[in-house]
Amino acid sequence: MAEEKNILTKPKKAERQKSLSKIRFEMVKERHLNRLKKAIESGEADKAIVPLCNYLFSLKHFFTSSSCSGRIILLGVDEAERKGNAFFHRKWHETVKPDEAWQALQENVKGKSIWLKQEPFIIHIEADSLKNIEKILELCRKAGIRRYGLQVIKKGKCMVELQGSQYLSVPVIEKGKLMIGKDYFDYLIGKANEKFLKNEKARNRFELLIRKELK
Amino acid sequence: MAEEKNILTKPKKAERQKSLSKIRFEMVKERHLNRLKKAIESGEADKAIVPLCNYLFSLKHFFTSSSCSGRIILLGVDEAERKGNAFFHRKWHETVKPDEAWQALQENVKGKSIWLKQEPFIIHIEADSLKNIEKILELCRKAGIRRYGLQVIKKGKCMVELQGSQYLSVPVIEKGKLMIGKDYFDYLIGKANEKFLKNEKARNRFELLIRKELK
Repeated sequence: MAEEKNILTKPKKAERQKSLSKIRFEMVKERHLNRLKKAIESGEADKAIVPLCNYLFSLKHFFTSSSCSGRIILLGVDEAERKGNAFFHRKWHETVKPDEAWQALQENVKGKSIWLKQEPFIIHIEADSLKNIEKILELCRKAGIRRYGLQVIKKGKCMVELQGSQYLSVPVIEKGKLMIGKDYFDYLIGKANEKFLKNEKARNRFELLIRKELK
Repeated sequence: MAEEKNILTKPKKAERQKSLSKIRFEMVKERHLNRLKKAIESGEADKAIVPLCNYLFSLKHFFTSSSCSGRIILLGVDEAERKGNAFFHRKWHETVKPDEAWQALQENVKGKSIWLKQEPFIIHIEADSLKNIEKILELCRKAGIRRYGLQVIKKGKCMVELQGSQYLSVPVIEKGKLMIGKDYFDYLIGKANEKFLKNEKARNRFELLIRKELK
């Protein structure tokens, strides 16, 4: 009788693995959801991307582990321009007035080297299976996103990174010395704003498709 | 007797599919190899990347469907900066002398809008199975490449795109009007050259790893 009970209740190996993957996926999702909630509460969350994040978390098989809606930044860099040593001199998640950005170039820049950058949205989407993450790859193609790819394939953890393709990236201050005049800087900010808006359009197109095709 | 022969020679469905995938992979590989050979013969191939391409083609389970070693370009764009309408005003797969690039900005630019761009290497690697392409993902991580991902997962066709992370991208001529002076342009070319060399270093690191770990 004991033996019979054992046979009836002990799950098969494949089933055990499946449920372990599920538990793992849900634990990681929970952790990221808490992080997002805290960022929203503290006002640190990037507002334009929050609705997409919330939608992804509402889906059974998906969530986002990190997302940025796109931004215009004044980025401080060290001599070797190492990513790890870079710092935000200023950051905008919206179009920026040339005068405001120009003002930021006059303040507290002594000895610093600074790049003006417009960076596109970047979104990391995780799914609980290869089958489900393949839907995200399909939607990337459908939305005309060119930079995307599956980076992690593990049981219960598959992750796609996708990003827009609008960029501007140019050095404007070299060791405290402003390298350009206001006219050219205004022109650059105009281009950065144009690209920011194109980026927003592409991101909205992707979000609409996600809402329509992923339930 | 006829029936017995049938049983002995007719392959099972899974085997048939496997061999169809293999045929498909080899046909596509052959086509891309011929394209590469032609590009080498005509001198159009990007020389710095040819050894890596040849190595990938020599492997049983892999090849590259397109590769660029990285470049510095003067890119002409239309008003909406549509990728499809962009054209190379000039292109270098090596560091460039500021005077040479400056000269190129004086020639045949009437009415044109031109961006100076340093673009990183971009490589597309295909493999015959998910298991094999996962090795490429692993090597991307190991080589410290940040932009990479599996874009296509089909039977007999799995494709990873990977690229470097060194960028410079800035508008320099607007509708025929030069927007910057020679001093700042020389400074930009200096930065583009620095980034070009960093890109080369990262690409060499990846190539070494590929040669060491993929046989």
